[in-house]
Amino acid sequence: MRQRKLKNLDERLEHFKNWIVNEPEKQKGRWKEAVREDVQAGKQNANIRLEIGCGKGRFITEKAFRDPENKYIGIEGQESVIVRAIEKAEKKGLKNIMFISGYVRDLREIFADEEVRGIYLFFSDPWPKKRHASRRLTHRNFLASYKAVLEPGGSIEIRTDNKELFDFTLCEAEAAGLFTKNITDDLHGSDIRKDGIMTEYEEKFSSMGKKIKYVELIK
Amino acid sequence: MRQRKLKNLDERLEHFKNWIVNEPEKQKGRWKEAVREDVQAGKQNANIRLEIGCGKGRFITEKAFRDPENKYIGIEGQESVIVRAIEKAEKKGLKNIMFISGYVRDLREIFADEEVRGIYLFFSDPWPKKRHASRRLTHRNFLASYKAVLEPGGSIEIRTDNKELFDFTLCEAEAAGLFTKNITDDLHGSDIRKDGIMTEYEEKFSSMGKKIKYVELIK
Repeated sequence: MRQRKLKNLDERLEHFKNWIVNEPEKQKGRWKEAVREDVQAGKQNANIRLEIGCGKGRFITEKAFRDPENKYIGIEGQESVIVRAIEKAEKKGLKNIMFISGYVRDLREIFADEEVRGIYLFFSDPWPKKRHASRRLTHRNFLASYKAVLEPGGSIEIRTDNKELFDFTLCEAEAAGLFTKNITDDLHGSDIRKDGIMTEYEEKFSSMGKKIKYVELIK
Repeated sequence: MRQRKLKNLDERLEHFKNWIVNEPEKQKGRWKEAVREDVQAGKQNANIRLEIGCGKGRFITEKAFRDPENKYIGIEGQESVIVRAIEKAEKKGLKNIMFISGYVRDLREIFADEEVRGIYLFFSDPWPKKRHASRRLTHRNFLASYKAVLEPGGSIEIRTDNKELFDFTLCEAEAAGLFTKNITDDLHGSDIRKDGIMTEYEEKFSSMGKKIKYVELIK
């Protein structure tokens, strides 16, 4: 979706700079202790969960709000979008969420092995052309990088409305040595809906009667 | 499961010989008209559905009973087991079911292209060793043969309690160009249970609290 050009984007980014982790690769191996400048030191036993492509942040900010003991990280490449997510986090008064501004290439550059409890990957670009398959964020090369940074037993939760991407993902998961769990091609018609939090995109498509496909990939 | 040796197996097979199609490859292309010797000519527009490895036949005989307009074929390699399935069919007075005694190598030897509406493949041997992967009945080579004999829009329904076989199957389906539908890793906890008929094996494992995984692969 095209974003309206935000007014004063630079100003707002400046205002929110404490929420965005600069040089995130420097936090590698110590994300559990990492905090924003404005909050107290984090708990050593907090778990880290991150959303790749958090968009306007509805999902990840609500997760963080409901689970204050743990830490959440929203990753988003579009600056005009990430400011919206931070606005939500600020409104909710969250102390347990940070943001990374940028597109993820390889999570292993930013996180140490087994540093992450969970990864959310919702409605990622299906890249329908076969020659673009390696750009899909569930390509086995990406899955291998997610797997490396996940704790044993950690999970990658995937939602999509795209049939082809879903089937592709299931196959890539097998190739990457991840197990499927709670798999369904109709999340909102199933008993699985664990948290009931929808992304902006999901609510729109779900209300149009589109079925949301869901799977957890377990390390 | 080991079968107790049946008494008088040969006698019983002889008694049931009208239920078993001899030289099934000779019926290729005309299964819709094919009938057992003891019943009237079949309807030209009947659909054909078959179960690969029908075991003692609880599922396929119940399907046939509920859907007398269409035709069902149970395929089973163990003679001592197939007689049990035929006993059930006889008790129900079914006129729309036939059996093929033998192990399936390639359905294309027996069925013409697009001759089959649906295939049931329940609790097939997981062949857990990687070097035996090509023996799994959802290996892409088998899926390609099923796909060839299926009508466009026809489906392969798969149930298993084996995680590894399930994930393997999903990947093979993608490779074979089949779409997933109604996918779940907890059939009896989902809304999908379309017919509610369980196989013998399924009832046993389901009552032990094992989750049954399910998927339809669509041509």
